[in-house]
Amino acid sequence: MSIKLEAAQAMIEKARAHAVAIGVPMNIAVVDGGGHLVAFARMDGSILGSIEIALAKAKTSVLFNGPSENLWEFCKPGGPAPATEYTNGGLIPYAGGLPVHDDNGTLIGAIGISGGMPVQDGEVARIALGKEAR
Amino acid sequence: MSIKLEAAQAMIEKARAHAVAIGVPMNIAVVDGGGHLVAFARMDGSILGSIEIALAKAKTSVLFNGPSENLWEFCKPGGPAPATEYTNGGLIPYAGGLPVHDDNGTLIGAIGISGGMPVQDGEVARIALGKEAR
Amino acid sequence: MSIKLEAAQAMIEKARAHAVAIGVPMNIAVVDGGGHLVAFARMDGSILGSIEIALAKAKTSVLFNGPSENLWEFCKPGGPAPATEYTNGGLIPYAGGLPVHDDNGTLIGAIGISGGMPVQDGEVARIALGKEAR
Amino acid sequence: MSIKLEAAQAMIEKARAHAVAIGVPMNIAVVDGGGHLVAFARMDGSILGSIEIALAKAKTSVLFNGPSENLWEFCKPGGPAPATEYTNGGLIPYAGGLPVHDDNGTLIGAIGISGGMPVQDGEVARIALGKEAR
Repeated sequence: MSIKLEAAQAMIEKARAHAVAIGVPMNIAVVDGGGHLVAFARMDGSILGSIEIALAKAKTSVLFNGPSENLWEFCKPGGPAPATEYTNGGLIPYAGGLPVHDDNGTLIGAIGISGGMPVQDGEVARIALGKEAR
Repeated sequence: MSIKLEAAQAMIEKARAHAVAIGVPMNIAVVDGGGHLVAFARMDGSILGSIEIALAKAKTSVLFNGPSENLWEFCKPGGPAPATEYTNGGLIPYAGGLPVHDDNGTLIGAIGISGGMPVQDGEVARIALGKEAR
Repeated sequence: MSIKLEAAQAMIEKARAHAVAIGVPMNIAVVDGGGHLVAFARMDGSILGSIEIALAKAKTSVLFNGPSENLWEFCKPGGPAPATEYTNGGLIPYAGGLPVHDDNGTLIGAIGISGGMPVQDGEVARIALGKEAR
Repeated sequence: MSIKLEAAQAMIEKARAHAVAIGVPMNIAVVDGGGHLVAFARMDGSILGSIEIALAKAKTSVLFNGPSENLWEFCKPGGPAPATEYTNGGLIPYAGGLPVHDDNGTLIGAIGISGGMPVQDGEVARIALGKEAR
């Protein structure tokens, strides 16, 4: 099973509303459990370079089944897996990507947010998934 | 000026409603006047291979400022511009892509539809832009 | 749900046995429902160029949820969707790729066979999935 | 001469058995002396992002005729050959890839393992080739 369009659009609306609240236009991408695009929205005024970053954060989260920033521990200077961020067509090792699981814990997709500072992107992603702010 | 997210999402909703009416799940992409993604929706049950085709139809329409099928007259066997469909990272020379213009006739974006037969995709694209059915 | 490694390896073994029987070394690829590689085997003596073709046939079948040769009706000269075979990183519009469904009819993967004539590749694919020969 | 399918499948089975023993699902790739895929297995539950990494580790080992982690001495900060890891379509400079030689010391292939921590991947690769654990 994979994430449905209606659920993906609801996540996007939650992300958009919070991005409006903090005054930062965002790019918002939702992919399924195989990394294929389900839904996307670019808010007016968001920067063009963030489109691909939002998509890549969602991809990173689904490919490694975790928050995109977790990749940093592996690929950072001195980390055990340098250059991993350049695999799979390009991954993003900072906040804004989160995996989505069903009630059984099965990976069914991921969300990727880009447009603000990474800490803002990560916060918007958390809120889109109904998680509490940090 | 470029197409706004709200307008793009309204087009997607019109496309989705018509796709539901004809019983064919579609992939729906909207790009801006520079060909950059604005909004996207994959309807549940649509085939995975159509994601990239919907994106490519929208790209084709904005890059050549016309319906995607117009490209066929140029690239078809015996046409004056063979292999044009392989430029720009891959174009689609059949129906489903339509450009979007503002009231002054300025190109502000395009829509790309894929999931059904090309004639169906083209019909859904026309309806999404508020044009009458053929 | 997606195809399991044990099931994929069993398919490969069936394909390999039939390829031995007809004396044609084959490349055999199995992907999951998202098009990601699950298992692969290249039989000794098979041609190198068939590796990518086997992979592309499996991808074609999962992306369009049908036998790879079905794509030909769309992209053949005079067909309604020319150039579709060049999308999605390259598809294969002849026999050798078949989708795999679970008991509920859900797409859970695909097999791709290459190394012989397309009619042989298609026969090996059918046998690998436990379908009767044509 | 190049590695045979039967030998490649035996390596994969050894790797799989050890991966089960340590409780880490792995992606396992075997390539021939020209870097072309011979056999592959993705264990159930292994992360999707590791498929390409396993393939790239095997490629790295055969292209440089050594353990994949040897590349790090060349490409690491301050090393003599920075950016080498971005050549050849992407290489992996950490453990999990090992070359395979015949009795005369001729390079006949390589194995690439990914799914665990690099030290685990390297251990599984060693065991797959019948080398003793470190």
